[in-house]
Amino acid sequence: MPGEVLRIGVIGVGRIGRVHIETIQSIKNAAVTMVADIWEEGARQVCEQYGIPKYVKDYKDLIAAADVDAVLICSPTDQHASQIIEASRAGKAIFCEKPISLNLNIIDEVCNVVEETGALCMVAFQRRFDPTFRRLQSAVTKGEIGDVHMIAITSRDPGPPPVAYIAQSGGLHCDMAIHDFDMARFITGSDIVEVFTKGDCKIDPAIAEAGDIDTSLVVLKFANGVIGTISNSRKATYGYDQRVEVFGSKGMIQSENLRPNMCTLATAESVHQDLPFNFFMDRYTEAYKVEMEEFVKCALAGSKPPCGVAEGRAATKVAMAAAASMKSNAPVAL
Amino acid sequence: MPGEVLRIGVIGVGRIGRVHIETIQSIKNAAVTMVADIWEEGARQVCEQYGIPKYVKDYKDLIAAADVDAVLICSPTDQHASQIIEASRAGKAIFCEKPISLNLNIIDEVCNVVEETGALCMVAFQRRFDPTFRRLQSAVTKGEIGDVHMIAITSRDPGPPPVAYIAQSGGLHCDMAIHDFDMARFITGSDIVEVFTKGDCKIDPAIAEAGDIDTSLVVLKFANGVIGTISNSRKATYGYDQRVEVFGSKGMIQSENLRPNMCTLATAESVHQDLPFNFFMDRYTEAYKVEMEEFVKCALAGSKPPCGVAEGRAATKVAMAAAASMKSNAPVAL
Amino acid sequence: MPGEVLRIGVIGVGRIGRVHIETIQSIKNAAVTMVADIWEEGARQVCEQYGIPKYVKDYKDLIAAADVDAVLICSPTDQHASQIIEASRAGKAIFCEKPISLNLNIIDEVCNVVEETGALCMVAFQRRFDPTFRRLQSAVTKGEIGDVHMIAITSRDPGPPPVAYIAQSGGLHCDMAIHDFDMARFITGSDIVEVFTKGDCKIDPAIAEAGDIDTSLVVLKFANGVIGTISNSRKATYGYDQRVEVFGSKGMIQSENLRPNMCTLATAESVHQDLPFNFFMDRYTEAYKVEMEEFVKCALAGSKPPCGVAEGRAATKVAMAAAASMKSNAPVAL
Amino acid sequence: MPGEVLRIGVIGVGRIGRVHIETIQSIKNAAVTMVADIWEEGARQVCEQYGIPKYVKDYKDLIAAADVDAVLICSPTDQHASQIIEASRAGKAIFCEKPISLNLNIIDEVCNVVEETGALCMVAFQRRFDPTFRRLQSAVTKGEIGDVHMIAITSRDPGPPPVAYIAQSGGLHCDMAIHDFDMARFITGSDIVEVFTKGDCKIDPAIAEAGDIDTSLVVLKFANGVIGTISNSRKATYGYDQRVEVFGSKGMIQSENLRPNMCTLATAESVHQDLPFNFFMDRYTEAYKVEMEEFVKCALAGSKPPCGVAEGRAATKVAMAAAASMKSNAPVAL
Repeated sequence: MPGEVLRIGVIGVGRIGRVHIETIQSIKNAAVTMVADIWEEGARQVCEQYGIPKYVKDYKDLIAAADVDAVLICSPTDQHASQIIEASRAGKAIFCEKPISLNLNIIDEVCNVVEETGALCMVAFQRRFDPTFRRLQSAVTKGEIGDVHMIAITSRDPGPPPVAYIAQSGGLHCDMAIHDFDMARFITGSDIVEVFTKGDCKIDPAIAEAGDIDTSLVVLKFANGVIGTISNSRKATYGYDQRVEVFGSKGMIQSENLRPNMCTLATAESVHQDLPFNFFMDRYTEAYKVEMEEFVKCALAGSKPPCGVAEGRAATKVAMAAAASMKSNAPVAL
Repeated sequence: MPGEVLRIGVIGVGRIGRVHIETIQSIKNAAVTMVADIWEEGARQVCEQYGIPKYVKDYKDLIAAADVDAVLICSPTDQHASQIIEASRAGKAIFCEKPISLNLNIIDEVCNVVEETGALCMVAFQRRFDPTFRRLQSAVTKGEIGDVHMIAITSRDPGPPPVAYIAQSGGLHCDMAIHDFDMARFITGSDIVEVFTKGDCKIDPAIAEAGDIDTSLVVLKFANGVIGTISNSRKATYGYDQRVEVFGSKGMIQSENLRPNMCTLATAESVHQDLPFNFFMDRYTEAYKVEMEEFVKCALAGSKPPCGVAEGRAATKVAMAAAASMKSNAPVAL
Repeated sequence: MPGEVLRIGVIGVGRIGRVHIETIQSIKNAAVTMVADIWEEGARQVCEQYGIPKYVKDYKDLIAAADVDAVLICSPTDQHASQIIEASRAGKAIFCEKPISLNLNIIDEVCNVVEETGALCMVAFQRRFDPTFRRLQSAVTKGEIGDVHMIAITSRDPGPPPVAYIAQSGGLHCDMAIHDFDMARFITGSDIVEVFTKGDCKIDPAIAEAGDIDTSLVVLKFANGVIGTISNSRKATYGYDQRVEVFGSKGMIQSENLRPNMCTLATAESVHQDLPFNFFMDRYTEAYKVEMEEFVKCALAGSKPPCGVAEGRAATKVAMAAAASMKSNAPVAL
Repeated sequence: MPGEVLRIGVIGVGRIGRVHIETIQSIKNAAVTMVADIWEEGARQVCEQYGIPKYVKDYKDLIAAADVDAVLICSPTDQHASQIIEASRAGKAIFCEKPISLNLNIIDEVCNVVEETGALCMVAFQRRFDPTFRRLQSAVTKGEIGDVHMIAITSRDPGPPPVAYIAQSGGLHCDMAIHDFDMARFITGSDIVEVFTKGDCKIDPAIAEAGDIDTSLVVLKFANGVIGTISNSRKATYGYDQRVEVFGSKGMIQSENLRPNMCTLATAESVHQDLPFNFFMDRYTEAYKVEMEEFVKCALAGSKPPCGVAEGRAATKVAMAAAASMKSNAPVAL
């Protein structure tokens, strides 16, 4: 792997691409040296704003560039797989947004190529880098709550995305709960071996018309015997609701939502606090930063990334099983 | 119904019988006038301690007594049904500990007799009278959280009862979770139409040898479309864990555990609070009081009790279905 | 001291007298056998409601009665001193509402008579029996926070009493803050040796016209070197605000307000909880019960009460010094 | 004022100087173009680490440099005043660490020069930019708690600095509490007109030998009639304790400490949370960032800074009065 500064090329300058570019500004030994987007005007603007020397329309030019050490794949989902494969073959370090693909066969192919080429490929499960979830996972790992018996994950968005987005998203389990399936595996340190799902459309009938649900409960059985639940909703009026509770033989650890300030106001009506952070950009600011720092560190050192294509594959597989269980109203073994 | 003071006869002077006798001491228009227990020494002691004028060995004498207006059935579970039936026919107001029976046919017979005789029979789901759960139920009823989408009940004991007790208890779902099934119905105001259960023995192998589990997760589907979970454990090291969370279209309401004091201590190690109340006697002191007051009020007024044999039957039926689902690893419709 | 049941006579059947009578109903080895009040109709009603056998108009008849073992003095403040003295000389156990008097010379006389007669006289600082403050005091005593450096007491009423009451109350420091001066002594286990007061009338100009203040901050210096503050207000819109924080060489202990339920509601506006208990009747229900139980226990055993006339005297003396400091805008040594 | 990017020169590359240099890395329209320090090796290292083009030994060279638009004064306190004066005369925008000086006459001279030259000079009270305190101040300003009656500031360090530092620090009030005096003025929006102080040395006798205290309570009276307290300690075992409570006619707002994670762990011993952030670097990370952004914005726009020399002067004047009050044990008017 390269010299002192990691030269990064970013494919896709949409919302998440810009988040990563912004984050990289404050990482010492990394610099964005190129962006690629078919939307030329967007690419040009981003270059100007961040002083990035070059943009290209065709991502293939970025992957081929000699002055690019690492590739950030922030393109639409259906391009992830081929771009990982191409970047792997070009010997680049890779950071790819989730999911790798909505097709398990394609994911398998990606995993094979990554293995063959020995490429360094990190999949973007940023919640693993959140200080609160890290503390929780460390409590579990260090045995602070003894043997784990149960885990309960609550994960609710402040509001549903546009129905057009939902229609091509792969469904709530592959699009939204996939982060929670990864979190469940991350915290318990165990694979999921069975799922059972109840799901419904309670928020907007248009979501049902688009073939999806907006409310879901998944029961998880893990290889190590732990039982778990994931409770999802596309709309929590009070903001982004991201909590985890783990119960074990020696105790319990829970995490609360993060808040923009630590004030409590008592009036004649009630004792109240401002709502928690509204969505992932604010809630996971710190996590995005630590995630990118870890990627840069791995890429420079050539070491194994903390979550790779295997993690991406596992979460997607569980998501698909969860969706299947809902349809059959029966447990599905993995 | 009788005069100004309700004259109460208590069958069974074990732990819960004594709790009720103690509670009645501070209720103005009620008095314990007789107790019945085959354990004569126990009955004698209780009479002496509380200044109760009379005790009998045979509960039939208590039911037949002219100076007893209401009967509290605190005997072992297998006597509940016949005692309700006899007291119903004797025209007494009845307060019976849960469960009515572990046999659904017997419960049906009890329900029939209660209906025929028009007896006033209240089943002891004391959690319905807890101020915290009442506030939660009132928030749901008044629409403070909008349409209910999901409910999650956490219910964990501080430690398992003796294995000998467990062996004849009817199993975790009929013995322990039955309170939670009633709570689920109480708060959502809806019947449970399907259950799916994952259960395991994680705390003590002797419990498995006795044919029971100690850890359970039940997924509930309600008639009104709500999805729910009940998470049970026989052993929470940190004390009695009794929490409910309800999520709806307008928001969420959660309840925390009650604590013996409201102090927080910050030292060089951590910021900490004393453990919550250890078990039901301390946690539900207030609930037992309100429950008995409500029973006395109903008995004196001859009005319908807030939870009757129908509620007892419904909770038991769900408990049995939950146990069946665990065995079949499939959802069970009710 | 007498037999198995303490026979109690209550002087004064106003609000606090009735609280104590109600409390005694659930104390096993105590009974109210007589009440005295010049308001005959009130006395008659109370006797009827609680099944008390006798009432008298003249409190002297109650003190003289052979079938009264203990006297509860719940009369107006200006009668406390003489009634303590008379009951002391009559050999009764005495429980007296605070303050003993608004005149320090009279208090001294009371203390002398109590000492000479060896009377058992408990002064009603019920907060000493509150489980939360007991936990806090025990943390301090056991050294859980090390050597105490500072204490901060917050004590705010939900609303001011009628101005007519305020006019004859002895002023905020003698009427309201007296409980906080006692709490300060109770928790630190040390005498107050200097006070400095800032006070103002911010809530109702009528209070200033009546010669009093409604907002006060008192700085305390204790014999053991601790520095403290007491922050008082006659009107906290959010209910009865009763909190204490103690800071020491090993840490800090704080107490929060008690709440009628442990629910938290999150909506699109905020995350909120119902207001804390509104006033002392609800906030200190448990404390009133423990206090009376302790008095009954002491009276039956003839043992020293946990807070006696010396504690009453000390708190009043500090209150007067606090009022003097406010006028002189200078520290006052005690 | 200059072009698009503010070219910043930093005088002093000690701890706080490096904090600001680090912060500036992620501010788009600002760049550190020069540093000055008599400690040449330190200056050289900082330049290398952050890619800063130039360093000088003599700060006068930095102030005189044409390619420096703004000067950050991070030198020892006794150099602040002369450097502000020189930078003012050189037409630079100035950001100066607190305090301006420990001599009020010198501060007055600085204020005069700043006024004469029309220099833009911001004093570094970073807590004004903390999101939690901003929310609190905004609640007060918007009238969410009505008219303010009382404010209580708790401000405790995790441990005392070296005694050598303390000896030349100007004392607890000028060195540490100065931030709290500024916070008191910031939140109430009013000047302090009287102080009364109790102080002591409770943590380390060496601090007393160095002529200082480590524990302080200051009572504040504000021009608008508000009464307040500031409670300081040099050693809170549980970490950096930074809380504010404001009480008013419509309610109360309080702020809690910030924590590194939002987890709660319940075990057989207690329910606990990790300690709050340990000290100002972690606690005020966000505040330092917002502060510098505001300075850059003001410097580029040539607009009035949110806290200037007048704020620095006011806080120092109160600090000196607080120290005087402690010595005289009497209130001191300002």
